[in-house]
Amino acid sequence: MNYKKENETSFTLGAFPTMEILKARSNLVRTIYTHKNLKQSAEIQNILQLAQNLNIPVTDGTRLIERVSGKENVFIMAEFHKFNDKITAGDQIVLYNPSDMGNVGTILRTSLGFGVKNIIFIKPCVDVFNPKVIRASMGAIFSLNIVMYENFNEYLKENEKIKKYLFMLDGKQTLQTLDFGKGEKALIFGNEASGLPSEIKQYGTPVFIEHSNKIDSLNLAISVAIALYQLAK
Amino acid sequence: MNYKKENETSFTLGAFPTMEILKARSNLVRTIYTHKNLKQSAEIQNILQLAQNLNIPVTDGTRLIERVSGKENVFIMAEFHKFNDKITAGDQIVLYNPSDMGNVGTILRTSLGFGVKNIIFIKPCVDVFNPKVIRASMGAIFSLNIVMYENFNEYLKENEKIKKYLFMLDGKQTLQTLDFGKGEKALIFGNEASGLPSEIKQYGTPVFIEHSNKIDSLNLAISVAIALYQLAK
Repeated sequence: MNYKKENETSFTLGAFPTMEILKARSNLVRTIYTHKNLKQSAEIQNILQLAQNLNIPVTDGTRLIERVSGKENVFIMAEFHKFNDKITAGDQIVLYNPSDMGNVGTILRTSLGFGVKNIIFIKPCVDVFNPKVIRASMGAIFSLNIVMYENFNEYLKENEKIKKYLFMLDGKQTLQTLDFGKGEKALIFGNEASGLPSEIKQYGTPVFIEHSNKIDSLNLAISVAIALYQLAK
Repeated sequence: MNYKKENETSFTLGAFPTMEILKARSNLVRTIYTHKNLKQSAEIQNILQLAQNLNIPVTDGTRLIERVSGKENVFIMAEFHKFNDKITAGDQIVLYNPSDMGNVGTILRTSLGFGVKNIIFIKPCVDVFNPKVIRASMGAIFSLNIVMYENFNEYLKENEKIKKYLFMLDGKQTLQTLDFGKGEKALIFGNEASGLPSEIKQYGTPVFIEHSNKIDSLNLAISVAIALYQLAK
């Protein structure tokens, strides 16, 4: 893949996420690239029209698209500037050292679906702007506040008061019987393999999504989705 | 990958799913293969001891492992006979034409976690025994009843009476307000891209997992997980 984490820009692979960024964050789009085998369709027409209205250059990028997307069938993409937002009012999903791109993309899409806009990443973590994450999110990333912190202490400093729920396998409180109550909440989830470190337990309420002992744990994206569903309910 | 859908056997890549099949379905295991770079560990010792107790042959399979797993770090695997179970009493998850291996693996793991044992596949669908599915399921597939039907009519014939819930974007009943009531239930989910065909609506209660209109739909594995959580609650 002709894309690197340290680049200042990334790419939306395919029409769907390209449309999403044009609708939600067109100011970040530098160029729209098209592949020589691009077929016209209503969706493509809309993208090209929108780009024209917004004065965004559209140019042939057959080789670049092939290098960024690998062997996949991608015929249009936007190159965009990466961003780091500020937290706004409302609930938060906090991902502590997530490492799987598919999981992160799915979590972004689910969070937008359940109306939680602040998505916070505690480093080290997966490259949130990798084209694979953008694609797995179905472009949802562009409609969310994406906020990065260098470590958990920096997050704590700026988010002292919010009610924190720490999803851990040894939480005594089960999600099934939890009353989230009023006020803003932060739902905090650990790394896929190692979970949350036990020393951060003191900063909130440890919660366990009750499941049978026939599995070690639920998948990260599944845990976040179930928590979001329960929160929204 | 040196594995084909039409083969009578498949493989568990790595120690974790290999241990799971030895615990749950050892009678299906033909051979345990080890890689020349296999490192000894307590888990590996357990696998090799169990294989010896069960009279399962253990043999060097360095090249076979590399061909089946591709470039991944796999040092042990079991070759096992594929299976097709019979439905038993209890609730059902029915997957109508699922096409994504990662989704199916995650759904298997989540179903085991929430205690639903009958997992039914309506063809055409992804190869449920592909090593990637086995791995994504974390070996959960071996502790479930896996049942295949050639088409939805065959499923209906043998499962006339069970209460059916059809997860569809245009369902009028939301999951959030649904009372599943008593008796056995079948939760039925469509293909990732196309959903359930509307002509099967007549066979059950269409249900919608309410989410904002900012996303098209929830991911399939996410939808199943939320429904399982609600059912178990």
